[in-house]
Amino acid sequence: MAERFTHEITVTWGDCDPAQIVYTGRIPNFCLDAINAFCDAHLGGGWFFQELDHNIGMPFVNMTIDFRAPVTPRHRLVCSVAVEKLGSKSVTFRVEGHQDGGLCFEGSFTEVFTIADQFKSREIPADIRTVLEKHRIK
Amino acid sequence: MAERFTHEITVTWGDCDPAQIVYTGRIPNFCLDAINAFCDAHLGGGWFFQELDHNIGMPFVNMTIDFRAPVTPRHRLVCSVAVEKLGSKSVTFRVEGHQDGGLCFEGSFTEVFTIADQFKSREIPADIRTVLEKHRIK
Amino acid sequence: MAERFTHEITVTWGDCDPAQIVYTGRIPNFCLDAINAFCDAHLGGGWFFQELDHNIGMPFVNMTIDFRAPVTPRHRLVCSVAVEKLGSKSVTFRVEGHQDGGLCFEGSFTEVFTIADQFKSREIPADIRTVLEKHRIK
Amino acid sequence: MAERFTHEITVTWGDCDPAQIVYTGRIPNFCLDAINAFCDAHLGGGWFFQELDHNIGMPFVNMTIDFRAPVTPRHRLVCSVAVEKLGSKSVTFRVEGHQDGGLCFEGSFTEVFTIADQFKSREIPADIRTVLEKHRIK
Repeated sequence: MAERFTHEITVTWGDCDPAQIVYTGRIPNFCLDAINAFCDAHLGGGWFFQELDHNIGMPFVNMTIDFRAPVTPRHRLVCSVAVEKLGSKSVTFRVEGHQDGGLCFEGSFTEVFTIADQFKSREIPADIRTVLEKHRIK
Repeated sequence: MAERFTHEITVTWGDCDPAQIVYTGRIPNFCLDAINAFCDAHLGGGWFFQELDHNIGMPFVNMTIDFRAPVTPRHRLVCSVAVEKLGSKSVTFRVEGHQDGGLCFEGSFTEVFTIADQFKSREIPADIRTVLEKHRIK
Repeated sequence: MAERFTHEITVTWGDCDPAQIVYTGRIPNFCLDAINAFCDAHLGGGWFFQELDHNIGMPFVNMTIDFRAPVTPRHRLVCSVAVEKLGSKSVTFRVEGHQDGGLCFEGSFTEVFTIADQFKSREIPADIRTVLEKHRIK
Repeated sequence: MAERFTHEITVTWGDCDPAQIVYTGRIPNFCLDAINAFCDAHLGGGWFFQELDHNIGMPFVNMTIDFRAPVTPRHRLVCSVAVEKLGSKSVTFRVEGHQDGGLCFEGSFTEVFTIADQFKSREIPADIRTVLEKHRIK
C-alpha cells in the first residue's frame, strides 16, 4: 500500500480566465508544483536543489492530463502525487487534483534522470529509488 | 493535403529556468497560444471572441505532450497547428514546436464545444467545422 | 500599532531564471498573491469573491516595487501586507518580502474600489474600511 | 529627438481574468517583454544573450507602473520603449502601452549593469551606452 503525498494550492483570481474558472494553461503548472513539492518533501529538495546541489537533472519527456471538472477559487485544490511507473532511468508521477471531494484533473508526468552538467541520462540514484518505491502505486 | 498553420513565438530569458532552457510549465502555454492564434486566424477569433461574442465555449478535456528537445531563446520557436481528429462535438489539435529545423515538442490537445453560458456540450457549428476540415491531417 | 499580516510563498525552480534567482516578472505576482491572501483572510474573500459575490471591483491604478536582494528557492518567502494609505475610494497596500530575515523587495500597490458590473468608482464599504484601518501603518 | 522602439503583443484569453480584462500581474511581464525585445533589437541580444554570451547582468532595482485603462484582447497592444534616465551604471526605461490609440499603462523600469558571474555592478559598456543615448527622451 503506497503512501499518498498531498500538496494544497490556493487558487486565485489571477489563475482564472473570463469563464471564471482556472485557465487550462495553469493546470500543468499546478501539477509541476505538486511534483516539485513531493521532491522537496521526500527527496531532500525540489528540482532547484537536485540540479544545483547534487548535479541531478530531472527533465520531463512526457505529460498527459485529463481535465475532468473546472477548478475554481471556491475550494482549496488538493493535489496528490504518487509514483505510477519506475524505470531504471525514469519515473512517471501520477498527479490528481481534487476540490471539495471531486476529481478535477488527473495526469501522468514522466521525468528522466540526468547528470545535469552533461545533459546525459543516468540511473536513478539508489537513495532516491528507495523513496520512489515507497510511493509507488500497484 | 491539409494546410499547416504556423505561429512564431519569441522565447525569452523569463521563459527559462536555471538549466538555461525553457521551463516545462511554459510549453503547454506556448501550445495553447498557438491554438488560440489558429482560432484567431481561421475561426474569426480566439477563445475570447468565441466565448464573449458568440457564446461558444471550447474547454479542454485532454492534453498530451512529448518533449523531444530543449527549447531556448537562441532560435525562434515555430509552432504548427493542424487538426488531428474531428468529432461531432470535439476537435483534437496537433501542435508541433520546431526550432532551427529540429522538433522540440509535439502534442495533442482536445477541446469540446459548449454553449458557453450553459456550460453544456454542443455540436461544432457548421462554419467552424468547414474550416477545421481544411486543416485536418489524414 | 497596526497588525501585520504575513503570507508565505514557496519559491520554486520554475520561478527562477538562468541567473538562478527569481525572475523579475514573478515578483509583482508574488505581491499580488500576498494582497489577495490578505483580502481572503481579512475581508471575507479575495478578489474573486469580492467581484463575483459582492459586485465589488478592486482594480489597481499603480504599483511601485524596489528590488533589494535576489529571491531564491533556498528559503521561504515571507510577504507582509499592511495598509499604507487609505482614501475614501482607494487603498494603498505596503508589501514587503523577506527571506531568511533579509528584505528582498518592498512595494506599494494602490487599488480603487468600483461597482464591478458598472466599472464605476465607489466609496470603500464601511465594513471593509474598518478592517483596513486596523492594518494601517502610521 | 529620440527614436521610439515599439513592440507588439497579442493579448489572449489566458491573459485575462474574470473581469474580462488583462490580469494586473500580466502587465509588468508585458513591459519586461517589451524591454527585452528592445535589447534584442538594439543591443545585440536580450538578457539571455547579455548574461550567457557577454557576462553582462542587468538586474532590476525598481519598477513603477501606472495603470490608466484596461487592456483587452480586442486590440493589439503596442508597447513603446525609450530611455528615460541614463546613469553611469544604470538605465531607466520608459514603457508605454497603447491599444487602439489610447494609453493603457505607463511605467519606469530601472536596471543596473553587473558583471554577471560576480554579481558586481559595473559601468555600462561603451557600445551599449551609445545605443541607449540614441533612444533617450529629453
